[in-house]
Amino acid sequence: MTAPGGVVPAELARLRGSIDNIDAALVHILAERFKATQRVGVLKAEIGLPASDPGREAQQVARLRRLAQEADLDPVFAEKFLEFIVAEVIRHHEAIAQDHAQRV
Amino acid sequence: MTAPGGVVPAELARLRGSIDNIDAALVHILAERFKATQRVGVLKAEIGLPASDPGREAQQVARLRRLAQEADLDPVFAEKFLEFIVAEVIRHHEAIAQDHAQRV
Repeated sequence: MTAPGGVVPAELARLRGSIDNIDAALVHILAERFKATQRVGVLKAEIGLPASDPGREAQQVARLRRLAQEADLDPVFAEKFLEFIVAEVIRHHEAIAQDHAQRV
Repeated sequence: MTAPGGVVPAELARLRGSIDNIDAALVHILAERFKATQRVGVLKAEIGLPASDPGREAQQVARLRRLAQEADLDPVFAEKFLEFIVAEVIRHHEAIAQDHAQRV
């Protein structure tokens, strides 16, 4: 993005640098989160538990909404964000459970 | 979630503790990201730039896919994640631009 004159204002360039750093941090911390949930998926498959767990998810939503309010983040967005991540996790867990069932 | 006997296995409880810590980190770093993008929205409104910027977004997607591969995160998920965040940012920027237009 450039201003009408073709130049990116200095403050915009600075903010974009920070956003890029934050995004790198998000990618790396998300990678760690999926490592943990992949292991949860294997455990669940071994124990024979379903991929989805509404009770646990309700607790997570309530906690994240509270943390979001403290951090000045829209709690509605925080909830949507968790739903987005959990949908991916459940997709992984179902795949792990299928794979486990085929090998047993 | 509990095992058939009603007990959460120790490893599952430990993993859930890590996931909860990671989620707290994600909420706080997302709050910082939206602080930066809110400021970008104000700058864009002042300069008269559109809320969406396809060129910048294409660069962000390419970079995040590369970072995701390095971090062992699914690059397709990383791209969906960025789209999810950017949709929220654009919603904010449009609101800021409307607000700015009404006050000018």
